[in-house]
Amino acid sequence: MGSKKIIRTDGRKPDQIRPLAFVNSLQTKATGSVIMKMGQTVVNCSATVEKTVPSFLDPEKQGWLTCEYSMLPASGTTRVPREASRGKQSGRTMEIQRLIGRALRVTIDLKKIPGKTIWLDCDVIQADGGTRTASITGACVALRLAVKKLLQTKELTKDPLLDNVAAISLGIFRGTPLLDINYEEDSQADVDMNLVMTEKGRFVELQMSSEGNTFTRKEMDRLLALGHKGLHQLFLAQNKYLNSIING
Amino acid sequence: MGSKKIIRTDGRKPDQIRPLAFVNSLQTKATGSVIMKMGQTVVNCSATVEKTVPSFLDPEKQGWLTCEYSMLPASGTTRVPREASRGKQSGRTMEIQRLIGRALRVTIDLKKIPGKTIWLDCDVIQADGGTRTASITGACVALRLAVKKLLQTKELTKDPLLDNVAAISLGIFRGTPLLDINYEEDSQADVDMNLVMTEKGRFVELQMSSEGNTFTRKEMDRLLALGHKGLHQLFLAQNKYLNSIING
Amino acid sequence: MGSKKIIRTDGRKPDQIRPLAFVNSLQTKATGSVIMKMGQTVVNCSATVEKTVPSFLDPEKQGWLTCEYSMLPASGTTRVPREASRGKQSGRTMEIQRLIGRALRVTIDLKKIPGKTIWLDCDVIQADGGTRTASITGACVALRLAVKKLLQTKELTKDPLLDNVAAISLGIFRGTPLLDINYEEDSQADVDMNLVMTEKGRFVELQMSSEGNTFTRKEMDRLLALGHKGLHQLFLAQNKYLNSIING
Amino acid sequence: MGSKKIIRTDGRKPDQIRPLAFVNSLQTKATGSVIMKMGQTVVNCSATVEKTVPSFLDPEKQGWLTCEYSMLPASGTTRVPREASRGKQSGRTMEIQRLIGRALRVTIDLKKIPGKTIWLDCDVIQADGGTRTASITGACVALRLAVKKLLQTKELTKDPLLDNVAAISLGIFRGTPLLDINYEEDSQADVDMNLVMTEKGRFVELQMSSEGNTFTRKEMDRLLALGHKGLHQLFLAQNKYLNSIING
Amino acid sequence: MGSKKIIRTDGRKPDQIRPLAFVNSLQTKATGSVIMKMGQTVVNCSATVEKTVPSFLDPEKQGWLTCEYSMLPASGTTRVPREASRGKQSGRTMEIQRLIGRALRVTIDLKKIPGKTIWLDCDVIQADGGTRTASITGACVALRLAVKKLLQTKELTKDPLLDNVAAISLGIFRGTPLLDINYEEDSQADVDMNLVMTEKGRFVELQMSSEGNTFTRKEMDRLLALGHKGLHQLFLAQNKYLNSIING
Amino acid sequence: MGSKKIIRTDGRKPDQIRPLAFVNSLQTKATGSVIMKMGQTVVNCSATVEKTVPSFLDPEKQGWLTCEYSMLPASGTTRVPREASRGKQSGRTMEIQRLIGRALRVTIDLKKIPGKTIWLDCDVIQADGGTRTASITGACVALRLAVKKLLQTKELTKDPLLDNVAAISLGIFRGTPLLDINYEEDSQADVDMNLVMTEKGRFVELQMSSEGNTFTRKEMDRLLALGHKGLHQLFLAQNKYLNSIING
Repeated sequence: MGSKKIIRTDGRKPDQIRPLAFVNSLQTKATGSVIMKMGQTVVNCSATVEKTVPSFLDPEKQGWLTCEYSMLPASGTTRVPREASRGKQSGRTMEIQRLIGRALRVTIDLKKIPGKTIWLDCDVIQADGGTRTASITGACVALRLAVKKLLQTKELTKDPLLDNVAAISLGIFRGTPLLDINYEEDSQADVDMNLVMTEKGRFVELQMSSEGNTFTRKEMDRLLALGHKGLHQLFLAQNKYLNSIING
Repeated sequence: MGSKKIIRTDGRKPDQIRPLAFVNSLQTKATGSVIMKMGQTVVNCSATVEKTVPSFLDPEKQGWLTCEYSMLPASGTTRVPREASRGKQSGRTMEIQRLIGRALRVTIDLKKIPGKTIWLDCDVIQADGGTRTASITGACVALRLAVKKLLQTKELTKDPLLDNVAAISLGIFRGTPLLDINYEEDSQADVDMNLVMTEKGRFVELQMSSEGNTFTRKEMDRLLALGHKGLHQLFLAQNKYLNSIING
Repeated sequence: MGSKKIIRTDGRKPDQIRPLAFVNSLQTKATGSVIMKMGQTVVNCSATVEKTVPSFLDPEKQGWLTCEYSMLPASGTTRVPREASRGKQSGRTMEIQRLIGRALRVTIDLKKIPGKTIWLDCDVIQADGGTRTASITGACVALRLAVKKLLQTKELTKDPLLDNVAAISLGIFRGTPLLDINYEEDSQADVDMNLVMTEKGRFVELQMSSEGNTFTRKEMDRLLALGHKGLHQLFLAQNKYLNSIING
Repeated sequence: MGSKKIIRTDGRKPDQIRPLAFVNSLQTKATGSVIMKMGQTVVNCSATVEKTVPSFLDPEKQGWLTCEYSMLPASGTTRVPREASRGKQSGRTMEIQRLIGRALRVTIDLKKIPGKTIWLDCDVIQADGGTRTASITGACVALRLAVKKLLQTKELTKDPLLDNVAAISLGIFRGTPLLDINYEEDSQADVDMNLVMTEKGRFVELQMSSEGNTFTRKEMDRLLALGHKGLHQLFLAQNKYLNSIING
Repeated sequence: MGSKKIIRTDGRKPDQIRPLAFVNSLQTKATGSVIMKMGQTVVNCSATVEKTVPSFLDPEKQGWLTCEYSMLPASGTTRVPREASRGKQSGRTMEIQRLIGRALRVTIDLKKIPGKTIWLDCDVIQADGGTRTASITGACVALRLAVKKLLQTKELTKDPLLDNVAAISLGIFRGTPLLDINYEEDSQADVDMNLVMTEKGRFVELQMSSEGNTFTRKEMDRLLALGHKGLHQLFLAQNKYLNSIING
Repeated sequence: MGSKKIIRTDGRKPDQIRPLAFVNSLQTKATGSVIMKMGQTVVNCSATVEKTVPSFLDPEKQGWLTCEYSMLPASGTTRVPREASRGKQSGRTMEIQRLIGRALRVTIDLKKIPGKTIWLDCDVIQADGGTRTASITGACVALRLAVKKLLQTKELTKDPLLDNVAAISLGIFRGTPLLDINYEEDSQADVDMNLVMTEKGRFVELQMSSEGNTFTRKEMDRLLALGHKGLHQLFLAQNKYLNSIING
């Protein structure tokens, strides 16, 4: 039952990520914005700044960073009903945007953005699996672009960034661990994992769930090893894109 | 008070539209999708098909076409709060999506799509004035792309399309009629007009509103003449893009 | 296809408005209130004043005027579900009340009512077509009655009123332009128009929409001419009623 | 401390009801509609019929009767915010419409209106105390008018009406029992009572509440006696109005 | 038709209340909390204090007391849908919590808790009829426990309590008045009554409603007499429990 | 920096769980219900059965199991606002109930409960950390009690249960891994973990999140080891309680 024999629907090897690209956003006037592509998954990630903080914080002492996530109606195979017309966000949406927010707050020293809230908005243009992890990876780039601009315009005086984050989704399908699963694989997987790490190699979030089958410690270990490999490539791509912007 | 003396914020002449482009959508798997750019205004327009009709219709006899409109949070100068998290759509959003729906229903024979609903979703990526008119112009292209695909896949057997529509916004600023006003012009205009016409030259919708000043019949006539000029260019661009897709 | 041959359901000529009356409101304690009857259409229009302004305004510098619209459940042929129990206002309601608000704001100098908001509430008692235009015509009378009382009680020191507005709906049915269409005509019309003008003869709002058929410039011109004729009668009736109140 | 010494704000004696009138509704096309006036309190009461029943009933075996209540924004001394724009009905509104519904269901044999729901809508045009009791008294008239019409049109074949109901509000102010309290009296009363009875003299609903002071059995008895007196006048007025309609 | 012949479903005599108990709450850290059992009906009643008052009150001059009521999903025979996931409270819930709030406000001098709001939360663990009256009787105990603690911790300096309240539900079934009706009896009763009184013997609230049958004055009198008897037992139990806590 | 030196607020050792008890529910009529106590954390867990399935399932082929979670207002140190009156569930609530649902669905063969939905309701009576994990552990017992009853009443013919689940929360505080953290520890922890496993030793869900600090693989391993230890005790307690019920 070796992983080598598995043929993935898009021809990839089990330990291979999908073609990956950061594309210049169409939001040319935004403080920070980028389009993250991971195979057929496409997410518009943007950062905007508001000069208020939630009421539970002291604006003199710190700022805040929060996230919202949504899917465009035509992003899926069948139309995704618009949450604004349904009048509420689904539990899935809330869970995802809470995850993205937690992940990104690790990258920033909120004491260095007093009185400000940074909103990270992840709008899924097209969904083919891994939208929450692509959102994290893309939002990190949007945040860096925004901070760069805020430093240039002197709206920030100190760089608040601490580290980069990236995220990848993985799954186990018929006993074989798969890196960067797409929608079709996700819907058939027995187990899935979302792994968020910093560029410095520390864990930010690990979520591993049974989807029809429970899992063992050994399987967890194998997925973690695959995940590390994928995240390494994501950090390279983030930095390459950011360097091209800064130098271009 | 001649129109020749007005210098527009972006250097255009009063009767000049902004640079205009239809760009291939990032929604590669959608039935029909296109990005409409009109200066700094960018709208993602998509068409998806559902095999149901609203309960007030007989699915044996006809289909339906409806529209939804939304702005991405980072589309504006300041963050646009997400309507899904506020829990309801604003009056402005509802008014706009009703307008787009009425405009596009003129282009299609609903009796030729029995049992089907075509959803046109217009998501504003970046807003710089004229988002509702750009949505109409772009949605018409998305609809044509979708119908083309549905005919190819035999999901439709007869072409239901009757005509093309396009729309343009205009305004009067200090007595001078301006074609294709951007956000800054719109916010200062005394009067604004939204004009929707078919390619065959018939009127679909005319809305002209006082924004701080009332207007005369003569001013209406001058805006209509300017509007015709702008719409002509939009129809050319629509057809050129569609031909490039069909032949490319 | 001459208009003379058309027989309207209620026996009117194409260029004839319905019997029209302003009736003393049953809201005897209201600041300003009137019942507007236009054929079988009956709207209760009232003006109330609150000593606050929306947060986007400086209460020292100006006031505000806003409008809400609703239909009583038994106003229609079949029961109109109450929006309060459905938990939200429909898109149609929002669109109508935005229109009424824009129209009435033209009649008042908001700088002369600093710190105050005037609410115009239009509650449709019975609906037989043209409820939004009857609401505008009636709301103008309610507003004038309220301002008169506020000047008497010294709550206002300067008269803020600039002009009167009135509105009429029109349609094209089988090629014939019809003035002041009722519900049955509206539901069969190919095109409809809502026209709002000031008593001084300036345009406030023009909305012309395809309902099953597009229209030509010539048809627009003919409807505008009919509309002018109808509005003239409405302004006469407004003034006659207001004079009877003031002198009575 | 006799009740004779109390001078009521409108000059009435403690055991005197306000001037009372049933006025022809402006809803000329409604199945049943009437305007109930009780002093300055004015309520539009209407009955409409829908050919469905709630899902918990068997449409073959019985029908249903339900009620909704609302206040027009200009009905009060200060503007009453519209529940449709707030997005929900208040607890007070729900409590009142549940009371009206219970009261009116006593008057009808639901088995004789199988498959039908009668909606009683009570819209307060002007509020000066006692709106819930005026709603019940008026709704009974609207229901009778509707049943009469349904029998004439053969939509009903058997008269489902069993009895009439009427209701009155009472209060105790500084120890004196007062019949038919107005808003000012209500807001100062120590105790208030709402009494609903049938014309045949049976009790339908009795609600007596402390508003700042508790009460004794003796006080209850005195209010009940006053209430009987007031209800007698209401039943006379209901019948007189209905006779005038039937014979007129 | 004597009441002696009626056999109640649980074997009680018509004038007999169900086994009654106050049980120590599982909310060991709450300011005041108790579990009220009345037969199979079980309600968790708690009192919590917030250092704010509603905006319509002056926090210097008085405090407030308010109540909320809810049913746990498994409290009923069939699952009671959770109001939080339905997105709104039902009319029944609102009516009940308004009743409980009115009843409990009679027991306290709000001027002696300036700037504070006491929340009484009644969560029905198991429902077998009489949940609203059990909530009142239990909330009175929770309130007393809370006030005792607030006096001990010096958060209150004066005892604000004026009197105790308790409540009982009654019904008439086939002509026989029944004390303390359970769910099965309630659903078959022709008439029901909720009676709230103070320990000093004054009336706080009396609600008597037709449920399928109207009622007479004589029936009301008989229910009141039964109610007095039941309330006497409830006040004894309240005091016995409170004494056991204070002395235990 | 050994864990031995840490003194926990309640005197426990780092690897020690809180006193744990399953208590007979007050919902004596429920299909399955139990109160789970874990230190000061108290959760009422109940299972109810409905004879429908969600529309995305075929009732002939399978059933469903779903979960809802809520906190009683007086469960916290300060009052937890009731989600039913706020009109929506928070993101935290949705995330938790989705987690509990996923965890419990692992324990049941849904094909053996065709046409039925089992609702697991977890209502937090008192919250002192670990409410979501206590909910899972308690819901497993409630589910077993319900299945037992359904088999006895022949509503189920085959036992659908596959395994038991239990869950525990852990944290890292100043470098020391702590088992079964309470609220105070949770609010100060740098990292927290929720671990769900089956009695057979397989993983169901692992969530590990940075709360102010990222973490290493070594720290994850130490928490997992502690977690195994704690879960062992939970499974013993579950079985002991269930045996006492079955044999008692």
